[in-house]
Amino acid sequence: MTNKNLISEFARILGKENVMAEEADRQAYSYDSAMLPPVVPGLVVRPTSSQQLSHTIRLCSLHGLPLTVRGSGTNLSGGTIPSSSESVVVVTNGLNRIIELNARDLYAVVEPGVITADFAKAAAMKGLFYPPDPGSQTVSTLGGNVAENAGGLRGLKYGVTRDYVMGMEFFDAGGELIKAGSKTVKCVSGFNLCDLMVGSEGLLGVYSQIILKLIPPPVAQQAMMAIFDTVESASEAVSAIIANRIIPCTLEFLDNFTIRTVEDFRHAGLPVDAGALLLIEVDGHPAQVEDEAAKVKEICRQNQAKKIQVAQSVEEKELIWQARRDALPALARLKPTTILEDATVPRSQLPAMISRIKAIAEKYRLIIGTFGHAGDGNLHPTILTDKRDTEEYSRVEAAIDEIFDAALGLGGTLSGEHGIGLAKCKYMENETNRATIEYSKRLKSVLDPKNILNPGKMFGGRDDG
Amino acid sequence: MTNKNLISEFARILGKENVMAEEADRQAYSYDSAMLPPVVPGLVVRPTSSQQLSHTIRLCSLHGLPLTVRGSGTNLSGGTIPSSSESVVVVTNGLNRIIELNARDLYAVVEPGVITADFAKAAAMKGLFYPPDPGSQTVSTLGGNVAENAGGLRGLKYGVTRDYVMGMEFFDAGGELIKAGSKTVKCVSGFNLCDLMVGSEGLLGVYSQIILKLIPPPVAQQAMMAIFDTVESASEAVSAIIANRIIPCTLEFLDNFTIRTVEDFRHAGLPVDAGALLLIEVDGHPAQVEDEAAKVKEICRQNQAKKIQVAQSVEEKELIWQARRDALPALARLKPTTILEDATVPRSQLPAMISRIKAIAEKYRLIIGTFGHAGDGNLHPTILTDKRDTEEYSRVEAAIDEIFDAALGLGGTLSGEHGIGLAKCKYMENETNRATIEYSKRLKSVLDPKNILNPGKMFGGRDDG
Repeated sequence: MTNKNLISEFARILGKENVMAEEADRQAYSYDSAMLPPVVPGLVVRPTSSQQLSHTIRLCSLHGLPLTVRGSGTNLSGGTIPSSSESVVVVTNGLNRIIELNARDLYAVVEPGVITADFAKAAAMKGLFYPPDPGSQTVSTLGGNVAENAGGLRGLKYGVTRDYVMGMEFFDAGGELIKAGSKTVKCVSGFNLCDLMVGSEGLLGVYSQIILKLIPPPVAQQAMMAIFDTVESASEAVSAIIANRIIPCTLEFLDNFTIRTVEDFRHAGLPVDAGALLLIEVDGHPAQVEDEAAKVKEICRQNQAKKIQVAQSVEEKELIWQARRDALPALARLKPTTILEDATVPRSQLPAMISRIKAIAEKYRLIIGTFGHAGDGNLHPTILTDKRDTEEYSRVEAAIDEIFDAALGLGGTLSGEHGIGLAKCKYMENETNRATIEYSKRLKSVLDPKNILNPGKMFGGRDDG
Repeated sequence: MTNKNLISEFARILGKENVMAEEADRQAYSYDSAMLPPVVPGLVVRPTSSQQLSHTIRLCSLHGLPLTVRGSGTNLSGGTIPSSSESVVVVTNGLNRIIELNARDLYAVVEPGVITADFAKAAAMKGLFYPPDPGSQTVSTLGGNVAENAGGLRGLKYGVTRDYVMGMEFFDAGGELIKAGSKTVKCVSGFNLCDLMVGSEGLLGVYSQIILKLIPPPVAQQAMMAIFDTVESASEAVSAIIANRIIPCTLEFLDNFTIRTVEDFRHAGLPVDAGALLLIEVDGHPAQVEDEAAKVKEICRQNQAKKIQVAQSVEEKELIWQARRDALPALARLKPTTILEDATVPRSQLPAMISRIKAIAEKYRLIIGTFGHAGDGNLHPTILTDKRDTEEYSRVEAAIDEIFDAALGLGGTLSGEHGIGLAKCKYMENETNRATIEYSKRLKSVLDPKNILNPGKMFGGRDDG
């Protein structure tokens, strides 16, 4: 941004130390965790109070400056990539207070920049449980989680971020404070603006405070690893567990390629000849855990599990979940470019989806490691490639198109938990229809008439927006 | 409606038998369960397919006719009262098919006119559980439940209707089909239009098909009735149960006036000298139920419960819940006009709210029986009066104003589960602020530019809309 007056005005509102106009600073906010071209913003600002946040938005509105709000930049769909060199990136890490943690009424009020895992820890200190645990939880922010409706390993039993947002205060595109939802467990006053803001990817407003639901923690857990010869038998076991009315806390899948890669990375003794692994945790009342664990084992055996390792200690349990957490970093080591997808299907379509991904990998001669939240029907086919290899990359793009076609063809969705952002705009109409896109655009246009809130995301280029 | 051509056109689309233009028919759709003046619509139509529903909306849009969609008219906030003598009431009882009930993937696809209890029964036949159980469930429709985000007795543990809506297809104000959400358990494709439609009271679109989540049923239950000398000790027990990390399936409250009235009505042997009753049910794994029931009993005793009756048979359990179901019909017998409110507060504010209601009843010399979903902080203070007694009725109106002020003052909300409709428009700004109302109106205006979808609700008169 070359307008020195404007920079001074931001500095007057936020303090000089919270306005970053230097090239090096702006570069650092030009990209996120999606494999997409960076866009260097004009300015990066860091409000440290709700009032500063409101002033920031008013100033952007007054000057028609596009603004992209950014937590920790762990977004996997390009949602936090600035729209242009005019953009103002609003960093939320200065808005990181837990304002209230109410153990009697089981809710908390937080600012958007609180780190997810820090919040979960603070809740645990009061004997309470905040279940959403996206893979990025140690760095991601609650505001980012809400903007993307982040999922996580516990989604199967405990739901996703949306299920824990009771209310919020946010600023509209003009910087006016809007109040939605409540600290009460039920609230039907007016439109459900709170849920509309969940997953809105920064296009409809800017969160100022979020009211989050907390629950009593489960008393007992049991984790196990079930080893299968084939992907098919593992995915049949997933369907059978759910069909038998058991809802594990976590039910994760790793294919052989991912298993071998993780083992190379950590040398933890994973069964490298297994066709697939299921990592399963049941939780709840101790007697329920015992019963459900026994049933899960039985169902896995019926579906040709060749071995089931039950964690006998905290350390053994940790080993199981470490394997899951290692999946992405281990795969990402192999090639310069890692593309993590999150196509999602109804659970019973999991075997079909897995075999479609395998066929697509073969057809396009690509390395795709697949792991993910099998219990949710939410897979993460992970394509390993090198973006500089343009020939291979064109095959990657064709493969991604086909993965989405396959998911939609099986009654699924483009995105289970990573959002649309820039990465999936072009597929949106395939999942819905033209009228749905128009309905959504009308909504965006009236709530953000100057199109300054994270423009270009979800619907494509600014001209379309 | 005097326009014969228009009536013929509706008849051509829907069949003569599904177009009701006679005075007597129209009278029957002029009111709902709220105590508000009736408005006789111009026409009542009954589409029997999605296509007919779409054509109906297009015809209304073409001629600028306001339309109010109506399930069974159990609405308690006037949401289904037509807006004017020009209004078309669209009755959904011809759209009553359960299209799919998928036991493997735990979802169902339904049309909006399916009766709530019929649907729950159909799910139970497949060994599945649809928890939302509004008091009107034997007559209410799923579409109505979604439009109002209906609650019920099981809200405390299992949530409300919103927590079971996975996706939907709906028609916008022009009759275009919009697709939102998915049959997958996670979906973040585009704006959260599905949740925006939940609780939208017919103002933003007309549901065509709804995808509902089902869950495995709890294996065991235990119901009990705890008898207290005072309202204060009963409401302290409610707070203590939650604070002790127990989430009962149901946790209901009846005050002494309600107890006596129910006993007069049914003669089931309720303790008429009790200051208050708590009706409690815990459910889940048998061992968990046993533990939690024991803890609940202990907490009730610590909070001065003078007797705790545990249901020892299905019949005894039925007796407990019959008492709760009797509360409204028993109270309603006493006086010509029954006003059922649903102010809601954070649970820990329950004792304060109950004493405020008592003080308000005394101040305005009114009979108010209070019962409700204590575990949710959602009370139903029920004012018994006679609308024709204008002097008394002005005291009733003043009392209602004060009840809402009290709820909002305690950090609560205007409505836990009955909606805003016509009844609570004027209080909306007290809960939120002017900017929130404007934000909501902008949203309405762009999604329904001719203001034909249930005009006058939520924000007041058409001119304001």
